Amino acid sequence: MSLPSHVRLIDVGPRDGLQNEKQPVPAAVKIELVHRLQAAGLKEIEVTSYVSPKWVPQMADNHEVMQGLRRAPGVRYSVLTPNLKGFEAALRDRPDEIVVFGAASEAFSQKNINCSIAESIERFASVVAAAKAAGIAVRGAMSCTVGCPYEGAIAPERVAYLAGLMKGIGVERVDVADTIGVGTPRQVQAAIEATLAHYDIDHISGHFHDTYGQALANTLAALQMGVWNFQASVAGLGGCPYAKGATGNVATEDVVYMLHGMGIETGIDLDALVDAGAYISEQLGRPSGSRVARALLAKRAG
Amino acid sequence: MSLPSHVRLIDVGPRDGLQNEKQPVPAAVKIELVHRLQAAGLKEIEVTSYVSPKWVPQMADNHEVMQGLRRAPGVRYSVLTPNLKGFEAALRDRPDEIVVFGAASEAFSQKNINCSIAESIERFASVVAAAKAAGIAVRGAMSCTVGCPYEGAIAPERVAYLAGLMKGIGVERVDVADTIGVGTPRQVQAAIEATLAHYDIDHISGHFHDTYGQALANTLAALQMGVWNFQASVAGLGGCPYAKGATGNVATEDVVYMLHGMGIETGIDLDALVDAGAYISEQLGRPSGSRVARALLAKRAG
Repeated sequence: MSLPSHVRLIDVGPRDGLQNEKQPVPAAVKIELVHRLQAAGLKEIEVTSYVSPKWVPQMADNHEVMQGLRRAPGVRYSVLTPNLKGFEAALRDRPDEIVVFGAASEAFSQKNINCSIAESIERFASVVAAAKAAGIAVRGAMSCTVGCPYEGAIAPERVAYLAGLMKGIGVERVDVADTIGVGTPRQVQAAIEATLAHYDIDHISGHFHDTYGQALANTLAALQMGVWNFQASVAGLGGCPYAKGATGNVATEDVVYMLHGMGIETGIDLDALVDAGAYISEQLGRPSGSRVARALLAKRAG
Repeated sequence: MSLPSHVRLIDVGPRDGLQNEKQPVPAAVKIELVHRLQAAGLKEIEVTSYVSPKWVPQMADNHEVMQGLRRAPGVRYSVLTPNLKGFEAALRDRPDEIVVFGAASEAFSQKNINCSIAESIERFASVVAAAKAAGIAVRGAMSCTVGCPYEGAIAPERVAYLAGLMKGIGVERVDVADTIGVGTPRQVQAAIEATLAHYDIDHISGHFHDTYGQALANTLAALQMGVWNFQASVAGLGGCPYAKGATGNVATEDVVYMLHGMGIETGIDLDALVDAGAYISEQLGRPSGSRVARALLAKRAG
């Protein structure tokens, strides 16, 4: 098995995770979570989003959170920016990277942002240009690259199409996301293969959800293609495993455990990461969505 | 990715799963579970165990369960036999296969059955001989092939040693089990590689626990070596995912979902399997340990 010797993990818990939490989370808790993640060795953290608080009230404290951070050297802090207005608001808070997005499913794009895939990416062109002018990196989140709740299976050609549009407006690197967690290893590999038509392997990250328990198998399949950037969410934030039909991000702890067990370096201290996950789980008043965290915490408790 | 086109699954839920349940389960429920599993397309089912009811009260109804089965053609019904007395009791119930066992960890063997690995296998020699004389197949369950709760990591040489002892007494095929679920893909491949010194790939099955969420990644790694026999437990029976420190078998539903998604045949109807898992979970009064089952049941409920 020829695999990367090092993997870079992007923890999306504070943004992609907490955004989906029903209960409000104080800005101070979000800041503390980011601090714990960077102390555990995370080098990339998706912190918040500059969307209208009308749509995503959980992220209304974006400015407060970003301003409250004690930034650690060498850590990249990214934020989601849905449009130019959001980007301008984000600019005040000096993110290292902004995240723009698009779906590989036409139906998903229409239902969620009320325009075609092509239109949605075209609207981001000015955001990407403004970010570059300001010296800020740009990542593109490609959702529904394997399956869509409306269309079902997504053909790899649609992923290549979306990746091409992203490349066309100057997006530097992209996430291949299995947003509803339905993918299995060969399907995920096909989506990554399609993305390789426009981005090299160093500029592709895997973003897998564990809804059907497939995320680590998919991570292994992606590693075998040479992918070495992955998104994950501490404590599996973003989908309570006890809730009906929850669609959760894979837990960062579970990914780190597998990688370390395979001799692949991450620079992350698993124990400190488990502590960070235990902190936010306690704040939310529920057990961690990470199997590794639950097993290790039970072991610690004897 | 070159992989087997067909996989044979051995559902160990009725035995390995229910054996670890705290609450008593009526024989009629166990029988119904086996019937539902065979109706869903399972061709191998580990039904019960002939151990002393003093040690495992859950399996005291072995005779009643075996006699209550409406056997389906082409299905292999296996039972665990810890010794000659157990084998003789089992013989009345005409199992198709008996299962003997041993640990790859010397400390585990001493703590659990109070003798060395070599002694434990030697004691099974008469059981294996008697089974063969009666025309009954013999499978060997090799536990702790990756990690042990007392010793920690287990060297592949210890797995080869155990496999050699199993081969020596005439065991026809073996399970490579990660009993405490700590293994990751490369470690599991090393344990299988060690087993190949004594058994060919068609006579090796993978038995992975999902304690640390690694079971499907490990299954993929085993598939990539050509392994096409796997044990799994419907609904993840054998470890409640909500209990402290639970060490659960991987859920059959989760394995089937991955295999079908990869175009690998199992002969199993996933919907019927989910129903079988929902049945036993309801009887036990708790949610299924299968992520696939929870996701599909939530989807059905709308």
